Amino acid sequence: MVNVGILGATGMVGQRFINLLDEHPDFNITDLCASSRSAGKRYEDATTWYLDEPMPECVKDIIVSETNPNDVSNDTEIIFSSLPTEFAAKTEKSFAKDYVVASNASALRMEKNIPLIIPEVNPQFLDMIEIQQKENNSDGFVITNPNCSTIALTLTLKPIQDNFNIKKVHVSTMQAISGAGYNGVPSMAIMDNIVPFIGGEEEKMESETLYLLGSQNNGDVSPCDFNISASCHRAPVVDGHTEAVFIELDDDVNIDDVKEKMSSFKALPQELNLHSAPKNPLIVSEDENRPQPRMDRNASDGMAVTVGRLRKDQAFDNSFKYVLVGHNTIRGAAGASILNAELINNKIL
Amino acid sequence: MVNVGILGATGMVGQRFINLLDEHPDFNITDLCASSRSAGKRYEDATTWYLDEPMPECVKDIIVSETNPNDVSNDTEIIFSSLPTEFAAKTEKSFAKDYVVASNASALRMEKNIPLIIPEVNPQFLDMIEIQQKENNSDGFVITNPNCSTIALTLTLKPIQDNFNIKKVHVSTMQAISGAGYNGVPSMAIMDNIVPFIGGEEEKMESETLYLLGSQNNGDVSPCDFNISASCHRAPVVDGHTEAVFIELDDDVNIDDVKEKMSSFKALPQELNLHSAPKNPLIVSEDENRPQPRMDRNASDGMAVTVGRLRKDQAFDNSFKYVLVGHNTIRGAAGASILNAELINNKIL
Amino acid sequence: MVNVGILGATGMVGQRFINLLDEHPDFNITDLCASSRSAGKRYEDATTWYLDEPMPECVKDIIVSETNPNDVSNDTEIIFSSLPTEFAAKTEKSFAKDYVVASNASALRMEKNIPLIIPEVNPQFLDMIEIQQKENNSDGFVITNPNCSTIALTLTLKPIQDNFNIKKVHVSTMQAISGAGYNGVPSMAIMDNIVPFIGGEEEKMESETLYLLGSQNNGDVSPCDFNISASCHRAPVVDGHTEAVFIELDDDVNIDDVKEKMSSFKALPQELNLHSAPKNPLIVSEDENRPQPRMDRNASDGMAVTVGRLRKDQAFDNSFKYVLVGHNTIRGAAGASILNAELINNKIL
Amino acid sequence: MVNVGILGATGMVGQRFINLLDEHPDFNITDLCASSRSAGKRYEDATTWYLDEPMPECVKDIIVSETNPNDVSNDTEIIFSSLPTEFAAKTEKSFAKDYVVASNASALRMEKNIPLIIPEVNPQFLDMIEIQQKENNSDGFVITNPNCSTIALTLTLKPIQDNFNIKKVHVSTMQAISGAGYNGVPSMAIMDNIVPFIGGEEEKMESETLYLLGSQNNGDVSPCDFNISASCHRAPVVDGHTEAVFIELDDDVNIDDVKEKMSSFKALPQELNLHSAPKNPLIVSEDENRPQPRMDRNASDGMAVTVGRLRKDQAFDNSFKYVLVGHNTIRGAAGASILNAELINNKIL
Repeated sequence: MVNVGILGATGMVGQRFINLLDEHPDFNITDLCASSRSAGKRYEDATTWYLDEPMPECVKDIIVSETNPNDVSNDTEIIFSSLPTEFAAKTEKSFAKDYVVASNASALRMEKNIPLIIPEVNPQFLDMIEIQQKENNSDGFVITNPNCSTIALTLTLKPIQDNFNIKKVHVSTMQAISGAGYNGVPSMAIMDNIVPFIGGEEEKMESETLYLLGSQNNGDVSPCDFNISASCHRAPVVDGHTEAVFIELDDDVNIDDVKEKMSSFKALPQELNLHSAPKNPLIVSEDENRPQPRMDRNASDGMAVTVGRLRKDQAFDNSFKYVLVGHNTIRGAAGASILNAELINNKIL
Repeated sequence: MVNVGILGATGMVGQRFINLLDEHPDFNITDLCASSRSAGKRYEDATTWYLDEPMPECVKDIIVSETNPNDVSNDTEIIFSSLPTEFAAKTEKSFAKDYVVASNASALRMEKNIPLIIPEVNPQFLDMIEIQQKENNSDGFVITNPNCSTIALTLTLKPIQDNFNIKKVHVSTMQAISGAGYNGVPSMAIMDNIVPFIGGEEEKMESETLYLLGSQNNGDVSPCDFNISASCHRAPVVDGHTEAVFIELDDDVNIDDVKEKMSSFKALPQELNLHSAPKNPLIVSEDENRPQPRMDRNASDGMAVTVGRLRKDQAFDNSFKYVLVGHNTIRGAAGASILNAELINNKIL
Repeated sequence: MVNVGILGATGMVGQRFINLLDEHPDFNITDLCASSRSAGKRYEDATTWYLDEPMPECVKDIIVSETNPNDVSNDTEIIFSSLPTEFAAKTEKSFAKDYVVASNASALRMEKNIPLIIPEVNPQFLDMIEIQQKENNSDGFVITNPNCSTIALTLTLKPIQDNFNIKKVHVSTMQAISGAGYNGVPSMAIMDNIVPFIGGEEEKMESETLYLLGSQNNGDVSPCDFNISASCHRAPVVDGHTEAVFIELDDDVNIDDVKEKMSSFKALPQELNLHSAPKNPLIVSEDENRPQPRMDRNASDGMAVTVGRLRKDQAFDNSFKYVLVGHNTIRGAAGASILNAELINNKIL
Repeated sequence: MVNVGILGATGMVGQRFINLLDEHPDFNITDLCASSRSAGKRYEDATTWYLDEPMPECVKDIIVSETNPNDVSNDTEIIFSSLPTEFAAKTEKSFAKDYVVASNASALRMEKNIPLIIPEVNPQFLDMIEIQQKENNSDGFVITNPNCSTIALTLTLKPIQDNFNIKKVHVSTMQAISGAGYNGVPSMAIMDNIVPFIGGEEEKMESETLYLLGSQNNGDVSPCDFNISASCHRAPVVDGHTEAVFIELDDDVNIDDVKEKMSSFKALPQELNLHSAPKNPLIVSEDENRPQPRMDRNASDGMAVTVGRLRKDQAFDNSFKYVLVGHNTIRGAAGASILNAELINNKIL
């Protein structure tokens, strides 16, 4: 068993970490870090619990510590981070001197030699770790996962990229409120409503996706050679991001062929049989009314992305469309960091 | 004052007709037609009222009549129709022998010599009326308005088409539940959820829009020469359709120029000062959080479309994006038919 | 025309004040006060507008001033206050030296000689004003209105109290999110959910109602002699509080008699024909599915309370039940203060 | 393993039965009955699956049979019924000739010698079974469970009744949409809204609760000697009924005493360690913001009722109040029938 700690442990993604790590076969929660306001209290007393499953017994009595490498147990190896962006860069780097930091924060995602990883998509980026450790002369390192809407999109693009020549991607999202954190979206803003803007989201989707699908050499990343245009919107849904995707290829394509490539898509986490890896990263539904966030967000314990309405685009040559749903705080956040850590644990530690 | 009747008067769009025609300066409701189950009853007794404004006094005591031209008052001139599609074609044609039928039903929209009209977009299609009357040797005729999501999109495309060369359009919709009628969407289907499919909607948006923006000659319509790809989704919003639009032009464009052309767009209904015509068909918002359906659906009494987030597309050359909101049962249904009737009343009757 | 100012003008209730005062026949908005952050800016620039009707033109160019009596125009007479409770008591008293302060804040509601008024219920409490002015040797004074759920309940109890002997009242509320202010209820807290607690609400409903229905003598108030037990809950509704009311009387009662007394209830504001007074303060619906907040909150421009399901209680002797809906930010907040000011303007100024 | 069948297997409660019976240690699904429209098809092909967990593999290939005792396998012993009321009485009786029928339908609940059971509350009513079998000269029999809102309320009243003298109960419900079936509540009826009426619900809560808490002698039931007044309302919540309860006792009471009696409440199903029995039927929360349906409906796999805000009633002597949440389609429907069947299986079969 590897001992792990969580930064931002009282927040919504922090709680997801706890929930997913409870009864994890490889990881054992030893440290919960939060702000000074919470430090020194029992976790149960420090936290307003937001998830609909109850707080795991194993964390209730842990005393919350300051967000400081010196306050973490010596035998802890991996630190999961759900720190707020503005606070993450410096703190995560300070933890990386001694610990493996698996971060869901956006601060260091695009930084040189800090691997931004989806284990099914670009495990070869792990090569950056050695360079990172050398540069910093550190025992630990930082590994990050992408933005929630990026992960779901990129997972669906990977088997398309592997088998066809993508020319253009347009994507329009309908994102769940949990993506903004517990206090992020006032109910007055979203009830009976759509909010057509999510700060920084389109930029992240457009840049992170190309980076993840790009190639890496000695720490230098060349983004893939097509482009993506995103329009991001908030919808009155608790969990689960829905994305409408329009793909243009270089050549004509048989839609059944795309379906087959998506539904049979497996990669390294499936090979390695990582604990959090879904049997199939993509579930392709033939029901024209699916995917739906309330019905499909929990597919494979929230780690699979469901794809539906895969259809030729009658308007344009060489084009097709689909809709996807992925769980934004599991596959799109805490579950993504944990899968990264499982990969690290399997390949590197 | 012109006497008017309403087919499908007890339904949700029928109620919108009544609401919008109450205290109308030119039209006077004389006939309310519905199914046999309602016929013979006072309208107030026959109807479960769905709107949040109260039922207008002027209709409460009207005795509902059968949906039959013989049961309509002799001095009635215009018949508004919100009949279900499967029932509309035959019935509307039978009324068209003697009456002007302004229909919101989809059955006859694409039929030769039956004008499909948005008064700000293609009033020249009214030429079809004379041909229609000759062919049928009738005093009346049918005029139709497009599908709710088509109207909002087409209004925004019109000033773009007039001033730039459109090459491709992608549109992803987040549509309100009222578009499916009162019993159309079970709450179990849509609460905390998105439904990624609306039967026939994408086909209508793709074909009707090109037709409306096309040219007409002697009743023959040539669709405009670009294409549109739509992905249509239902969201938990009571009224107001939101659409994310991606435009590719033939040439580079200055986004302020697009903004100016949209916000200054006016057309025939504004010139004629038709009662239901909004002062500006398009309202362009500079607030990055707008348009929102709950906040913008009632702009100009539900007859204007609000456009926001007009921005260059960083991913592709010659491209820009925006989000629009339009009221689906006012500008997108009953209000559309009424504006058509006002145009007819002004130019033809 | 009387010149009026608004404290807390950029907040949600402040915006309702502006909306209701726009085109008011007796009042003219001259001053808009807010926090230092907003002061000095044009109102339009200082404010994120929350209402679905657009911001009235007449306030856009008003320069927001500090919340200080010295910063208000000399010829202003009435100050409406929607200040936060913790800030209201001291500030409202400082304005009351020179101005009439009509406050929606709870801070001073139960303070001796500050009248807590619903014009249809206890206009005789206005006698306190003279005592208040004498005590403070001031030209102005403070008048307050009750809590949103109290107002709706009390309006329905008044004709019952006038005609029957009330013994006990139980009330269970389902309250709209707007009652907590724009940022009050996170969407994560209320979507697909009910929150069974609203801080201080039950205490206010239980004490304010008895006070309003009590008697007043020389500034001393004797609460009415029955009691009320409230259980208050937040529901996913934008505007409009729903309350289920159980009444026990001393004697048996004919339910049609209660209906008649409620639906015919009129009082001083109706006699005086005050601008914001609804023709009937209570609208009694015979439809078993009403009242509903989305359908009934705007009855009489949000100033009437709708009562439905008035029925004998089969479980207990001398008992009956009903459900009410009232608009919490109109009749329950801004509209209440304005009706109070109209009463003052008519009887005292 | 006991073989079981399900009537109404394609409906929403039918699907809950399947979901809860999948991997049940004692029961094995052999028969799925539905309307003629579905009969003869594979279950997977006949059914639109409504639950957010996927359809269990074990039922996909079962061929749906007609709702007829002759079409059920010979070695099936228990038949679960979620038939519509109007259809249930006759059909369930025809199955009861040979099978144990555990019914969630309301048709036979109050019929003489058909036990209406909550295993924690009135297992002694099982005595009726022998009388029922004798009267009908049948091998099988019918056992029923109460209405969803009744079950949750009655479970909380049982330890109060056992330890104190209840005089009066008032209850106001906020019920989830799933209680009305998949197509029961149109989204237009409930979004941003409350519906203040649920047909027959108040009558069921008032009569069934008294019956369950009454005494039974030779098939004759004497209801308990206090009364209950209910006001029932529908709220925009997917699953989980919330109820605000006001209790008046004969004597004064210490609230901590009530808390202790509720939280320590256990009964026969806990003693017998029945598979679906929650460890504690009542979970008492000290958090003033709980219970909430989204957070608490799944407590103990949906079989426990969560009670919160247990507080003295300041308005009335000898009175206290609380709020409860129970899962309406698990503890309030399919789970209730299954627990009944587990009790039967343990004590009678």
